[in-house]
Amino acid sequence: MSDALDLEALVNRYLSTVAAGNAANVAALYAEDATLEDPVGGGDVHIGRQAIEGFYKAVEAAEVKAELLTFRSGGQEAAFLFALTVAGAMRIEVIEVMTFNSDGLVTSMKAYWGPENVTQL
Amino acid sequence: MSDALDLEALVNRYLSTVAAGNAANVAALYAEDATLEDPVGGGDVHIGRQAIEGFYKAVEAAEVKAELLTFRSGGQEAAFLFALTVAGAMRIEVIEVMTFNSDGLVTSMKAYWGPENVTQL
Repeated sequence: MSDALDLEALVNRYLSTVAAGNAANVAALYAEDATLEDPVGGGDVHIGRQAIEGFYKAVEAAEVKAELLTFRSGGQEAAFLFALTVAGAMRIEVIEVMTFNSDGLVTSMKAYWGPENVTQL
Repeated sequence: MSDALDLEALVNRYLSTVAAGNAANVAALYAEDATLEDPVGGGDVHIGRQAIEGFYKAVEAAEVKAELLTFRSGGQEAAFLFALTVAGAMRIEVIEVMTFNSDGLVTSMKAYWGPENVTQL
């Protein structure tokens, strides 16, 4: 079953769901016991779908566009570079790594970026 | 001590060492008990510096160029996109994720790429 997963389609769905801005809808793409670290090294790992929804709630008011720039995958994992434009004022290029379960739900997400990757537009 | 690590410099050193083509020198950048998975999902995880040297031995004869395209880091982890040119005939764009110990040695490496990311030149 896992061979049938189209991880690039799942990542595109994730990015468009983030852009649509509803935290509960984004959290629904994660497994119940998923983990989220954004940014990596930032100190917080959000554990579980409820905590993950809380994380996305903090950003759901912003007008966001997301564009997939480079996508790679192997097994049930994906690594990808994408650009996030926030309120037409700020662009952030992020590398994320995600793992998926056989149902196509995200089991872990790690976002690699820092202040040096933020550009004012 | 870990705050002082310049992960981008370590990644550039890794890429230039890979390009120089000596497997033992590349393996020396890894911790004794490091793990390497290249490509992710390919089935093999190489465990320990000796196994890692064996992995690089398989490619040490090829003439390789490596160019860092996008670098991100957080904590003691780095994620980066780079281009590998092999014998002037083939270009592969790879996303790798590495973790480091406080001595700056690589403790894990995962390379995300597939046949669809190989371009004949």
